[in-house]
Amino acid sequence: MIYFDNAATTQPYAEVLHTYQEVATKIFGNPSSLHNLGSKSTRILEASRKQIAELLGKTADEIFFTSGGTESDNWAIKGVAFEKARYGKHIIVSDIEHPAVKESAKWLSTQGFEVSFAPVDEKGFVDLEKLAELLRSDTTLVSVMAVNNEIGSIQPIQKISELLADKPTISFHVDAVQAIGKIPVSDFLTERVDLASFSGHKFHAVRGVGFLYKKAGKKLAPLLTGGGQEKDLRSTTENVAGIASMAKALRLTLDKEEVANIKIAKMRQIIREELLKHGDITVFSGNENFAPNILAFGIKGVRGEVVVHAFEEHEIYISTTSACSSKSGKAAGTLISMGVPTPSAQTAVRISLDDDNDMSQVEQFLTVFRQIYEKTKKVR
Amino acid sequence: MIYFDNAATTQPYAEVLHTYQEVATKIFGNPSSLHNLGSKSTRILEASRKQIAELLGKTADEIFFTSGGTESDNWAIKGVAFEKARYGKHIIVSDIEHPAVKESAKWLSTQGFEVSFAPVDEKGFVDLEKLAELLRSDTTLVSVMAVNNEIGSIQPIQKISELLADKPTISFHVDAVQAIGKIPVSDFLTERVDLASFSGHKFHAVRGVGFLYKKAGKKLAPLLTGGGQEKDLRSTTENVAGIASMAKALRLTLDKEEVANIKIAKMRQIIREELLKHGDITVFSGNENFAPNILAFGIKGVRGEVVVHAFEEHEIYISTTSACSSKSGKAAGTLISMGVPTPSAQTAVRISLDDDNDMSQVEQFLTVFRQIYEKTKKVR
Repeated sequence: MIYFDNAATTQPYAEVLHTYQEVATKIFGNPSSLHNLGSKSTRILEASRKQIAELLGKTADEIFFTSGGTESDNWAIKGVAFEKARYGKHIIVSDIEHPAVKESAKWLSTQGFEVSFAPVDEKGFVDLEKLAELLRSDTTLVSVMAVNNEIGSIQPIQKISELLADKPTISFHVDAVQAIGKIPVSDFLTERVDLASFSGHKFHAVRGVGFLYKKAGKKLAPLLTGGGQEKDLRSTTENVAGIASMAKALRLTLDKEEVANIKIAKMRQIIREELLKHGDITVFSGNENFAPNILAFGIKGVRGEVVVHAFEEHEIYISTTSACSSKSGKAAGTLISMGVPTPSAQTAVRISLDDDNDMSQVEQFLTVFRQIYEKTKKVR
Repeated sequence: MIYFDNAATTQPYAEVLHTYQEVATKIFGNPSSLHNLGSKSTRILEASRKQIAELLGKTADEIFFTSGGTESDNWAIKGVAFEKARYGKHIIVSDIEHPAVKESAKWLSTQGFEVSFAPVDEKGFVDLEKLAELLRSDTTLVSVMAVNNEIGSIQPIQKISELLADKPTISFHVDAVQAIGKIPVSDFLTERVDLASFSGHKFHAVRGVGFLYKKAGKKLAPLLTGGGQEKDLRSTTENVAGIASMAKALRLTLDKEEVANIKIAKMRQIIREELLKHGDITVFSGNENFAPNILAFGIKGVRGEVVVHAFEEHEIYISTTSACSSKSGKAAGTLISMGVPTPSAQTAVRISLDDDNDMSQVEQFLTVFRQIYEKTKKVR
């Protein structure tokens, strides 16, 4: 089996599952309980928070646990909008955001908020000039992802930070779900960033756990109200086993980030160069300012799902651009935003690599690719 | 160690953790992925949904997975309010709801909705006549919990169902978090109930997973928008390992429910009778229409947290009425609603039993109780 769909989800590390099991078995108290089974849980919870904060160069009081990337995104977008509604009801999100951001913004537009979608250029990068033009006095939020999930373009978070430097009333949210472990933290968690979303299962943690970075002092309305956990900003009994094992997954991921990404980038480069040799291949992912792990391409005239299934027959697992949109059969939203014509966008598939992959898998992948390329010649 | 705090959280069953581990290790695909690693995950996900539905006598399309009780409650309360806002902006929740319901209602009152709190009588039951008086033509939601988490009173869900029988435009939500496995499903999941909340970790599943029952055809606005999972009503990559192991936990719990509750009720009865022999003890939990597992009482003049810590010294773990409110040091909200004077409410502690407990633990508990009772005599 060759798993090249790591942007959809990753396999939890064995050590992570071990930690999960240990904590779930032995430290099962409710952190809100007054007795020492509760205190034990609280200690693990807070140690995990501190570890994650330190790995990001932030402080523990800036880390808030959630159920994953979607909740983090929903909370950031809706939380800022509601929190700041009395100052303004205009928000800006980029046109290539993950649905967790984009659909949250669209929902807000049914609740009296106005949403602008910041366009991207033909390479898949947010257009800074056009973003600047969208800023208004009643704008309360700008949300731009760090790494696009469909093609891997790294968004200009530092330049947007500069653009927003003299606009302190605008909250700046970054969806960092596909960025963590793939590009340096300092590239997307700038001093200007107020909020950033993270999802555990994208970096070998278990499913159902993630976190939101919220800069100290920044206000945010809660999305989940109730028992008052997470400083009354995100209620629910804390998933201590999930959180502790996520902290471990993040440490393991960041410990080897540099070495892993050199290897991953090399694998990507080999595949990319091979693809470019073929006339009927469109490579949607560029080279400069692209994440090392994601590569989107298409075989002209062949729908992405046909290619996914052709690879599947050889136990090679890839994706039609994003897991979320794949079942709907829609063309990749990012490509459409880039101005790629729909017939071409419908050919797109995405491979997303990981340190678990190796060069022999790349060779196997390319062998199978050549077979599929030949086979589909007749339909092209 | 004697763990009598099972209403705060339960220890996951070993079999449940085993299932979790198996699925997390072997079935790690994203259910949204088109390839067969995704399909494998989808099959486990849908089998779990079907199993849970069947255990409740419902259909699979009525079960929606969430991150737990708090999210289920938030979703139900806010989801109905937003969904039906154009028809009416008045909602009713009982005065003794869990904070996940009550705080959600309070938040809605800051967003242009009007909230009425249905009062309870001095025994801790929602007053049906007063509830009826609160109903208006613009009421869109009534939310009443099945079993109160602080004293264990079983709310008259069947009678409220009758009250709402001729008011089909009102959504009826039941927080069933403390009811499942403790009282028969038919007692709280009547035909009239539109929505019901469940939390896995209250019935020996892992933390961070729960579900919402939503009657077929009933409309509800999503709380988490995004990739379109759960029929576009609750987006996020599905926590398949958590969900599959929760289905197992529910089956194990309901399989032995009847036998377990006879044993649990007997243990509760023995403790209750012993407590009632002591003059300076107030037993807040009644006998008729009370859950078999929860017993709230107080030693006159001694604050609840003092009693919790006194038991803790003997490795006996109990709670000050609810885990969520315990750290805030507030008196139990349910007791205040019942008209218990604050000084008396502040003495309250809660024991919550489980099938894991046994009669020898009850005897040990009572021995320690007598010691604490004697020791605290001087301060009374």
